[in-house]
Amino acid sequence: MALNVVALAGGVGGAKLAHGLAEILSPNTLTVIVNTGDDFNHCGLSISPDVDTVTYALAGLAHPQHGWGRAEDTFQALSTLAQLGGPTWFQLGDLDLGLHLFRTGKLRAGMTLTQVTQAVCQAWEVAAKVYPMTDDPVRTMVKTPGGELPFQEYFVARECEPTVEGFRFAGIETAVPAPGVLHAVDQADLVVMCPSNPWVSLDPILLLDGMRISVGQKPVVGVSPIIAGKAVKGPAAAMYADLGIEPSALAVASHYQDLLDGFVMDVQDASLADEVRAYGMKVAVTDTIMRSTEDRVRLARDVLHFVDAEVLG
Amino acid sequence: MALNVVALAGGVGGAKLAHGLAEILSPNTLTVIVNTGDDFNHCGLSISPDVDTVTYALAGLAHPQHGWGRAEDTFQALSTLAQLGGPTWFQLGDLDLGLHLFRTGKLRAGMTLTQVTQAVCQAWEVAAKVYPMTDDPVRTMVKTPGGELPFQEYFVARECEPTVEGFRFAGIETAVPAPGVLHAVDQADLVVMCPSNPWVSLDPILLLDGMRISVGQKPVVGVSPIIAGKAVKGPAAAMYADLGIEPSALAVASHYQDLLDGFVMDVQDASLADEVRAYGMKVAVTDTIMRSTEDRVRLARDVLHFVDAEVLG
Repeated sequence: MALNVVALAGGVGGAKLAHGLAEILSPNTLTVIVNTGDDFNHCGLSISPDVDTVTYALAGLAHPQHGWGRAEDTFQALSTLAQLGGPTWFQLGDLDLGLHLFRTGKLRAGMTLTQVTQAVCQAWEVAAKVYPMTDDPVRTMVKTPGGELPFQEYFVARECEPTVEGFRFAGIETAVPAPGVLHAVDQADLVVMCPSNPWVSLDPILLLDGMRISVGQKPVVGVSPIIAGKAVKGPAAAMYADLGIEPSALAVASHYQDLLDGFVMDVQDASLADEVRAYGMKVAVTDTIMRSTEDRVRLARDVLHFVDAEVLG
Repeated sequence: MALNVVALAGGVGGAKLAHGLAEILSPNTLTVIVNTGDDFNHCGLSISPDVDTVTYALAGLAHPQHGWGRAEDTFQALSTLAQLGGPTWFQLGDLDLGLHLFRTGKLRAGMTLTQVTQAVCQAWEVAAKVYPMTDDPVRTMVKTPGGELPFQEYFVARECEPTVEGFRFAGIETAVPAPGVLHAVDQADLVVMCPSNPWVSLDPILLLDGMRISVGQKPVVGVSPIIAGKAVKGPAAAMYADLGIEPSALAVASHYQDLLDGFVMDVQDASLADEVRAYGMKVAVTDTIMRSTEDRVRLARDVLHFVDAEVLG
C-alpha cells in the first residue's frame, strides 16, 4: 500500500504490530514513534527498552518468544553481576549489551537519541523510520501507596506488585517531540495506535507538546492491547483495575475516544463492539493475538483493510 | 612466611608477581596497591584495567595467555558494537563486562572504588587486600608530538605508535591515597615494586601525597620489567627509548635508585649487575620471566629469599 503511516508504539505489543506493518507497507512509508518514558540508566548504561524492542523487531533480531531482547542471546555479563551481588532484575543479554554500550557512548559523545536510533537502524538495515518520541529526558513514575517508583522498578524489579494510584511523567512539561516526529505525523495519511499500554506507553507520546493536536488532525485507528479483560503482555490490565476501571477493550476505546476514528478489537471482545461504536468510532473485530510473524502481518493487513474500507472510506 | 608485604603493581606483570606472592605468603599479609592512572570511562562504564587485572589474577579468573581479561570469555557484546560501528579497540569480554557494570553501578550509587574493589575481592574470595591507589580521579596523559593522549588511547587504540615526550598525571596534585593504603605501607616489613611500567604504572602510585615518603621508610625491593632491553609486556621499553634513555634493567634501577634497597633482574641482564650495585643496592639475578603459575611462585620465592638473605639481613 502507498499509505503514509505513523505508528505510535511502546514495547512488545507495539513492536509486533509495527513489524507487521513494515512487512506490508511500501518502503519509507512507515514511521514508528516510540515511547521513551521507560528509559533509564542501569549501571551507567543508557537503556531505551521500548526503542530497542521496536528496533529488534523491525531488524528481525528480536527474541521470538520473549518479544524483548535478542534472539539467541547469552547472559555471561549477567552471570558476573550475579556472582558479585549486583542487580540482576533487568535482563541484560550480551548481544543486547552491545547496543546499550553503543548508545551510551554516542550519547556521551554528544549525539541525540534520535541520531543514535537512526545509526542503529541504518546498520541493521531497518527500512522503517524509527523515532524516539523525544530526545529530552522523560521518566515515567508510577504512583503507589509506598511512594513513586520509576517505571522499570515498578514493572521489572517489583513485578507490578505495588498498587497503581496514578502516573507522573517527569520532564514531560519541557520535553519536545524529537526532530522529525511532528513532521512525520503531518505527512501521515493515518496514525495507528499500536496495542501498547495506554497509560505508560502511548499517553507519554501524546502528552508531548503539540502531539495530541497533530495526531487529532489525522485519521486515527487504535488496536486494543486488552483482550478478554487481560493484557497480552505487561501491566495494562492491572493498572486499569488498580485505578478502579474494569480492564477491557471498551476502557481502552474510552481512554482515546476523542482521538480515535476506528478501533480494532479481538474476536473475544465482539460483544463490546456496539458500546465502542457508541463512542462515535468505527469498529473492526478480528483475531488480534500475535504469536507469529504471520499473525503480525495478518493483523496489520486487517487494520489497513479496515482503515481503507471504513475509516478513510 | 610471616612478612607483611605491600606490593605496588600496574597491570599484567604486576598482577603475575602479586599472584605469586599471594600463593606463598600467609593469608592477610599481602596488600597490593594498584595503579588507577589507566582508569577511564568507556561507553559509560567506569573501567579500572589494572585493578581488574590484579583482581582476576588473584581470584584465579585471569586469561592464562593474555594476562588481562578473563579466561574463557566470550565477545558477544563486542560483536554488536562492531556491527553498529561502535568502538571495538578496547576488548570488552562478556564476563568482564559484568564487573564493569557492577563497579559503575556501585560508584554511581555512592560507593568508593576502594569499597567496590573490596566487595569484588570478597565475592571472589581473594585473600590478599587489593587497594586502588586512590579513590580520586587520576588520569595518565601521554605527551606526544600530536598533543596529549589519554593512556588507553595511546596504549590500546593507537598501539603505542606515537612518540612519547613525557607524561602528565591529571588530578595527581589533589588526589590522596585510598583509605588503608598509607596504613598498609606503615605496617609493612617490605615493599615490593612489581615488574610494572615505571613511568605509567608505578610512578603515579609514588606521586600520591605521602606515598614516596612512606615507602622510603621501608625496605624496598624492585623487580625489573625490562629484560634484555625489552619489556615483557607493554610500552615501557618504547617509552625509555622515546625519552632518550636506553631501555634496560639498569635504567629501571636508576629510575628508583633513591628508593630501592634491593633489585631483582633477569639472568639475561647479569652483565649489568655490578652497575646496578653501584647505585648502592643489593642485586639478585634470576629467571624473572613468568609464563606459568609455577614461574610466578618461583619468582616470588626468589624475591623473598633474596630479601631475607640480603636486604633485611
